Amino acid sequence: MAHTSNGLILFAHGARDPEWAEPFRDISKRIAATRDDLAVRLAFLEFQTPTLADVIADLAARGHTSIHIAPLFMAQGGHLKNDVPKLLAEVRSRHPGLKLELLPAIGDIADLRQAIAEWVANAIPGAST
Amino acid sequence: MAHTSNGLILFAHGARDPEWAEPFRDISKRIAATRDDLAVRLAFLEFQTPTLADVIADLAARGHTSIHIAPLFMAQGGHLKNDVPKLLAEVRSRHPGLKLELLPAIGDIADLRQAIAEWVANAIPGAST
Repeated sequence: MAHTSNGLILFAHGARDPEWAEPFRDISKRIAATRDDLAVRLAFLEFQTPTLADVIADLAARGHTSIHIAPLFMAQGGHLKNDVPKLLAEVRSRHPGLKLELLPAIGDIADLRQAIAEWVANAIPGAST
Repeated sequence: MAHTSNGLILFAHGARDPEWAEPFRDISKRIAATRDDLAVRLAFLEFQTPTLADVIADLAARGHTSIHIAPLFMAQGGHLKNDVPKLLAEVRSRHPGLKLELLPAIGDIADLRQAIAEWVANAIPGAST
């Protein structure tokens, strides 16, 4: 098994319905298929586990020194603006050597907003059809 | 002004932070820019207005006979599986001539899962860099 020093956490909101997490498992597999240098994990804010703090601690314990966190949220609200930065500050104080980087939310990425807009526009029959 | 018979409602969760809705306004503008045959509106499940029921009623009152609803949710949980179908059944009983079609959630669309996976994979420096 190749040693991987980089971790990627796909961080999702979570829901009571366990099936809710299926799309995130699929995204995780798609990334892992092209990036075998990354340890790819899922974490959840509420209703589902593991938590973000638990996954960071586990990756750190396994020797990963750089962890990217991709928040798979449509947009940034109180969770991403307030709760997550506080949590990351706490984690940094416990793991001073760990490099943690928070990626933007889905809706903050222009290419993904465009991909969503195109998909929706193409899903609706045109005026001439 | 051209008559438009089709409506599109971008349906988002909503949040206490009003800035949360900005990405959805941007997606709405991107769709409207290429589909001037559609009346494109935003609606929210909670915390923000207008509601989905209000927007459907308004579009129906303006003579739109076919309305697509695009749920801009990452995945389907209780809201999309239970609450929205109940709401649409009620709306249909009040507007029997109205054609309402619910599109899939973002995470149920393979092309968008792939776009998200590619964006995230490309955002993280490779093992060789």
